[in-house]
Amino acid sequence: MSYIQSLYPPEHTHCFGCGPANPAGLQIQTHWDGEVGTCRYTPGPEYMAYPGVVYGGLIACLIDCHGIATAIAAAYQAEDRPMGSEPRINMVTGNLNVTYQASTPLGGELLLRAWVHEMAPKKVLVSCELSAEGEMTAVGQVLGVRLTP
Amino acid sequence: MSYIQSLYPPEHTHCFGCGPANPAGLQIQTHWDGEVGTCRYTPGPEYMAYPGVVYGGLIACLIDCHGIATAIAAAYQAEDRPMGSEPRINMVTGNLNVTYQASTPLGGELLLRAWVHEMAPKKVLVSCELSAEGEMTAVGQVLGVRLTP
Repeated sequence: MSYIQSLYPPEHTHCFGCGPANPAGLQIQTHWDGEVGTCRYTPGPEYMAYPGVVYGGLIACLIDCHGIATAIAAAYQAEDRPMGSEPRINMVTGNLNVTYQASTPLGGELLLRAWVHEMAPKKVLVSCELSAEGEMTAVGQVLGVRLTP
Repeated sequence: MSYIQSLYPPEHTHCFGCGPANPAGLQIQTHWDGEVGTCRYTPGPEYMAYPGVVYGGLIACLIDCHGIATAIAAAYQAEDRPMGSEPRINMVTGNLNVTYQASTPLGGELLLRAWVHEMAPKKVLVSCELSAEGEMTAVGQVLGVRLTP
């Protein structure tokens, strides 16, 4: 299956974090297996907090965009419709909460796993874990707020 | 007075969000008046969420770095010592929480105001407000955790 962001409507493809059409952006890709959203991303060296450590703000960006993509995928699934079908489901972030548990080593691939914590008609709360080299270093929650079509 | 980040130790000048020595980074500058930390930043067009709107992940980055700088400035002040004096006060982010209240218009200057909400020997909790064109569009809290010298 295609990654979630590739099925976003054109006006949402410029997002710095996940828009396929933003050449300066992160262009993260979320894959959804029906239960968990997965994203793998290797930050460039500019995204450092201090030498050898990933910038926490980047981690917030990854959790934000990956969380929203997971929320959208889950919302389509809850309505038993294919991702990207009309009427489009679009969401914005209402709240982003990230707890940094340990330094995240810079240089290798990061793995994000996200799943729905709570779903309501207009809101989806997603939990997300970020790990590097097999160790979980950050956890977060993203509140996706559904836009009226 | 110099901006807070200009007084960081050399190992903390590469941060993507606020390191003066990171040419690819945001290089934000925090000014501290003894009570409130202030930062003005104009995002480039690449930092969009969708056309005309600032990317929420960027807002998280700004609140993170500006919050930590404010926490460090306040911690020096609480010890009645000049910013940057030995032993150095360094902090990392333990938690970052951002609530997006409205879309933040892209194109103009953003204003961030931050202040200490709670201070403990090893932790400082900072509150931050972000506004654009005179309207507050996001609020956040940053928990700064002091590193052992």
